[in-house]
Order: sequence, then C-alpha cells, then structure tokens
Amino acid sequence: MKNTALIMAGGRGERFWPRSRKNLPKQFLCLTDDGKSMIQLTVERIQSLVDIEDVYIATNKSYKKLVMEQLPDIPEENILCEPVGRNTAPCIGLGAVHIAKKYEDAIMMVLPSDHLIKHNKMFVRTLKDAIKIAEKDTNLVTLGITPTYPETGYGYIKFDEEETSGNGYAVDRFVEKPNYEIAKEYLNSGEYLWNSGMFVWKVSSILANMEKFMPDTMKGLNSIKESIGTKVQEEVLEKEFANLESVSVDYGIMEKAENIYIIPGAFGWDDVGSWNAVERIKQTNEFGNTVTGNVITIDTKNCIIEGQEKLIATVGLENLVIVDTEDATLICNKNSTGDIKKILENLKICNRTEYI
Amino acid sequence: MKNTALIMAGGRGERFWPRSRKNLPKQFLCLTDDGKSMIQLTVERIQSLVDIEDVYIATNKSYKKLVMEQLPDIPEENILCEPVGRNTAPCIGLGAVHIAKKYEDAIMMVLPSDHLIKHNKMFVRTLKDAIKIAEKDTNLVTLGITPTYPETGYGYIKFDEEETSGNGYAVDRFVEKPNYEIAKEYLNSGEYLWNSGMFVWKVSSILANMEKFMPDTMKGLNSIKESIGTKVQEEVLEKEFANLESVSVDYGIMEKAENIYIIPGAFGWDDVGSWNAVERIKQTNEFGNTVTGNVITIDTKNCIIEGQEKLIATVGLENLVIVDTEDATLICNKNSTGDIKKILENLKICNRTEYI
Repeated sequence: MKNTALIMAGGRGERFWPRSRKNLPKQFLCLTDDGKSMIQLTVERIQSLVDIEDVYIATNKSYKKLVMEQLPDIPEENILCEPVGRNTAPCIGLGAVHIAKKYEDAIMMVLPSDHLIKHNKMFVRTLKDAIKIAEKDTNLVTLGITPTYPETGYGYIKFDEEETSGNGYAVDRFVEKPNYEIAKEYLNSGEYLWNSGMFVWKVSSILANMEKFMPDTMKGLNSIKESIGTKVQEEVLEKEFANLESVSVDYGIMEKAENIYIIPGAFGWDDVGSWNAVERIKQTNEFGNTVTGNVITIDTKNCIIEGQEKLIATVGLENLVIVDTEDATLICNKNSTGDIKKILENLKICNRTEYI
Repeated sequence: MKNTALIMAGGRGERFWPRSRKNLPKQFLCLTDDGKSMIQLTVERIQSLVDIEDVYIATNKSYKKLVMEQLPDIPEENILCEPVGRNTAPCIGLGAVHIAKKYEDAIMMVLPSDHLIKHNKMFVRTLKDAIKIAEKDTNLVTLGITPTYPETGYGYIKFDEEETSGNGYAVDRFVEKPNYEIAKEYLNSGEYLWNSGMFVWKVSSILANMEKFMPDTMKGLNSIKESIGTKVQEEVLEKEFANLESVSVDYGIMEKAENIYIIPGAFGWDDVGSWNAVERIKQTNEFGNTVTGNVITIDTKNCIIEGQEKLIATVGLENLVIVDTEDATLICNKNSTGDIKKILENLKICNRTEYI
C-alpha cells in the first residue's frame, strides 16, 4: 500500500514574535542551526518513506506562496488551502479525501509542521512500526512521547501495557490538557504518554471513523471530494469547508474511536513551544548562552540571543531572551515568554498591525 | 571687571555608549527631555553673566565642527582646539592666556560641559557669590557639592567652617578619589564637600599660581600667548602644547595654592556619570521606568529604555538599561553600567572601530 503524508501547516505561532509574524509563522522559520525551516525539516524527515508527490500540505491560503517557495518539489495541487481555520478534524478530513481521490486506499501519516525531532532514523523506524499496525483492520495509530515532567500544555494518552499490537500498545483514552496536580499524577502513574499530534492510519480507516462519529462533517467532505479536479473545486471547498464543525481530531474521533494504538517514541521530540526551546535545540556556549548574529556579551549567562547584522551588546545579564529583527527587538525574561502574546494584544489594540 | 568663561569640552564620555561615540561624545548629546545638548545647556546657564563673545570652549580639533554647529553664536576664534589632551591644568592655562591677551584682567569661570544643574537661577546666584570672592586678592574659588552618599568616583575638598569670605569657606585641602571606607569617613565628618570641577578666579590669579607652581607650563603658555593673532599661532600651539606636562589643575595648583575658598552649591548638580543618571534627570512613569522612543513594556519595572523608531518590546524585566541606536543596541544591568567600557575594549581589540 502507498505511503502518503499530510503535513499540517496552518498555525500562527505567536510565541516566536518578533521573528514569527502573521505573514511568516513559526513553521516557516529556521530555528535550528542548519538553515532549514521547520516545515522543510518535516518533509525531509519522511523522504525515505513517502514519495514527494504523495506529500500533502494543509495550510491557509495566505501561506501558499511560502510553502511553494520553501518546498518547490511538492506539486501545487498537493497544497491544500483551508478557506478558514476549522481545527484538526476537518483539516485531516480534507487531506484524507484528497488522498482517497488519488488512491483507492493508502497509508496516511499526519504530521505537524512545527515540531522538531532529534533522532531522524529512529523516528522513521517508529513510523514504519506504526504503518505495520495501521495496515491491519481499521487501526488508528498515534505516536506518544514519554513524559519527563508534569507539563500542563499537552494532552495525555492513557495506554494499556498488557494489550499490544506489534510495537504499539492499546489506547485506553485521550485526555485534554490537565492541571498541574493531575499532570503530576499522570507522570507518576507511568500509564500516560504525551499526545504528540502525530498519527498514522489508512485513509479508509480514518474516513470510516469520520463517517461514524462526525457524519455531518463527512457529508461536507464528500461534496469536496466530488469536486476535486473539476472547475467548481475551489467554489465547493469555499462553501462546504466553512460549514464544517470546528473540532480537533482528538475530541471528534480519537476520544470515541476503538482500535487505537500508541507507540511510545524515543526519537527526541520537541514541540518548540516558545523561545525557551531554542537552548534545547541549539548549541549553548560555556556561559550557557545561545547566541547568533552580531553579538558581544560581557558577564552574561544563560541567555538566548538572536541577533542579526545590528550589534547587540549585553552587560551583566542573566536568564533573558533577546531577539532582534529588522523593525522590532524583544527583550524578555525567560520566565515570562508566555506573556509575549500581551505585546501582540497591545499592538492589536493600538492598531500597529505592521508589527504583528 | 569683565566676566568670561572657559567651558571644557574635550572629554570622550565612553560611559554613554552606544549613544556617545568617538565622534559624538557625551557633552554633545541631548540627555534631558528639552532637546538641548549638555554643552548648549552649559552655555545657556551662564548667559546672564557672560557675553557670548567672552565664552571660550576648550576642545579637541575633531569636535570643532560639532561646537560650531551646536553653538553658532560663539566666535570661531573662541573655540580653542587642544592639539593633544593634556588634562585640565594646560587646558585652563590655554584659556587663561587667550583671555589675558584680550583683556588686561578678567573674571574667569571654568566649567565642565557635561554636567547638569537643576536650579539654574540658584546656580547663577552662587557664581555671583564666587565672583565677589574671586575679585579680592588672588583668591581662587571652587564650587563644592554637599555629599549625600560615600561616592568613590569624585575628589573631595576639606573646608574650614570657621574661616569665611562672603559666602565662601576657606579650603583646607583637596583630596583625590577616596576608597569606600574613607569616603564614608568624609561623609560622616561633615568637613568635606565634593569637588565639582567648577572654578572662578581672576585670570591674573590663576596665571600667578601657574607661574609659581608650574613654571615650565607657564613658559610654554607664554609662547602660545605671544603667537595669538599672528600667522604662527597654530604652529606654536601645536609645538608648545604637546610639551606641556599632563596634569590636573587640582593636583598641579589647587592642592598647593593658598587663598582658596569653596562655596557649597545647593543648585541640583549632577555629573551625569553613567546611564543610571538618566532616571534622575528625566521623568519616570508609574512603574519606575524612564522611557523614550517606540517602546512597549509588559511587566517591566525600574528600567531605563532609550528607544528610537524601531520597536523595543520588553516583558518581565527589572533594573535594566536598554539603549537602541541606528547600528547598535545595549542591554545592560543597572548595576553593571561601569562595565560598558569592556564592550568598547572588546570592539577595539576586534578592530570594529565603526561602533566606537
């Protein structure tokens, strides 16, 4: 059976302001040392498993040009532009009907475009394990991450260590982001993995589940499928997609479906959720600083400094994130990166959209 | 007797980097809210006491253009360019012989160009008191500042509360910058004032003292005086000035001379010695921040932020100095402003003179 992939690239990633902007969200940024953007790395990572003409990108119309620039080998018709954001279930459904139109059935991997993976070969091996499980029956496979601390920003997945299929474990249930106390319980119990948002299944399996749990959505998707390759394709997409219920695949399907398996991934996953992630993914120097660009540091420790051509000089600093861009400079306490969104709120209120 | 003034404007002021540069030292910067440079304020402050054609500026050749731009009313021949820096004694001597060439005798006020004074009228009144004392005999008058904390960066002057002349007190001795323990003793004793570096005397008085305590310097200065207004003026200055001993007027004359009086000034003096001074001389907002330029602050307290057109966004910061310029941005702990010179040393070593 053919392997295909849907890469989800509609996100905004405000947490990387001022480098990420409305017109250049996180997945299109180069945050690593290798000069490749997150989405380029995502496609590169699966190239041994999926032919490039079977890689689909789900994004937003305004990012189509960026996708074409950064991924010139992907056929234009594989860039699926959601007319409006409707969360992951409709997005995945849109990808599934496109693949179903092309192949009678196929393996479909669903991958976020803005995560990083350290051990690429291990990741590919895990995907191969997932494919083996997904090929059977209507199994849905998700990749889980072994939690290392009580993170409250991720969903968790409870699994059953006794019931296996290949290298996967049967999933008991999907749970939403917990509070700190519950996250600690999950961590200590050893029965939960983090939900990475990466899935592997047959197109036929996910569409059967969508038919069962989201019949209205499936109706709209079927109309879209009909129109693919016809003159009215765009018109139908525009009309039908906006009417689809905005819901995540976790809530719409995974929390209800049966035959779900999880494979714990040990491939060095990082969701690169904020500027703080940069020191995990880039080299730090002897003072604990992660520095790029034209920078002089004096008595400066544990800082993340992303300079450009302009000289950034620091004296007597600790634990800061400093990011310079053409028109804006951010100076932020590492413990306050969650508040960067307040800058954006402030800019919106003041109608200074040029910085957003 | 005519009042004249010598304003000393040869300093570099590295402590205001990145706004101060080799080609734009502190005295030519606008550090206050009124849009006037330090040297412009210095001249403005004494305009009721001294005719503009009797104001002399001692500076370095490379700043002559800046002086002419910022102080267009001062006659060009009053801008005295020291061929090399030789500390304050030769600088004051050069001013004195120029004034002596013009007037048989005159009152000469010596003023630094990079200090600020809050209460201008009180300052003028103090200068008038000083002039009264200076007119008598060969009195030398200095303006002292009542110390408010044990500063180790200033010289101190011991005075005698019993021996007065007008509003001045007899000076016991000039002492160099003390260490912290000694500075505390000076502060607690009540017998010391800070040395502000501002003096008032008759030209004849200072030249008589120079003749007595620095005869070699006086010889050179006499040759320079001879040449003023002749074709060889520049040539003689170039030759003689470089041979003068580099010494401060405090060490060369004031520590040895007699008949010195000090007037304690309560006119709100500030030597604006570092970026930390900015919050003393500018308005701070409700969060203790002193902010200029295009700046958004979130959860930021007690910071000095000097922005320009580029957006500076701060989140979760405290006690920092942030200064943005066209080609360089400084981010410095308020407790580390003394280490800004290390940035300049680093730049010199790396031969990156464009930033110096």
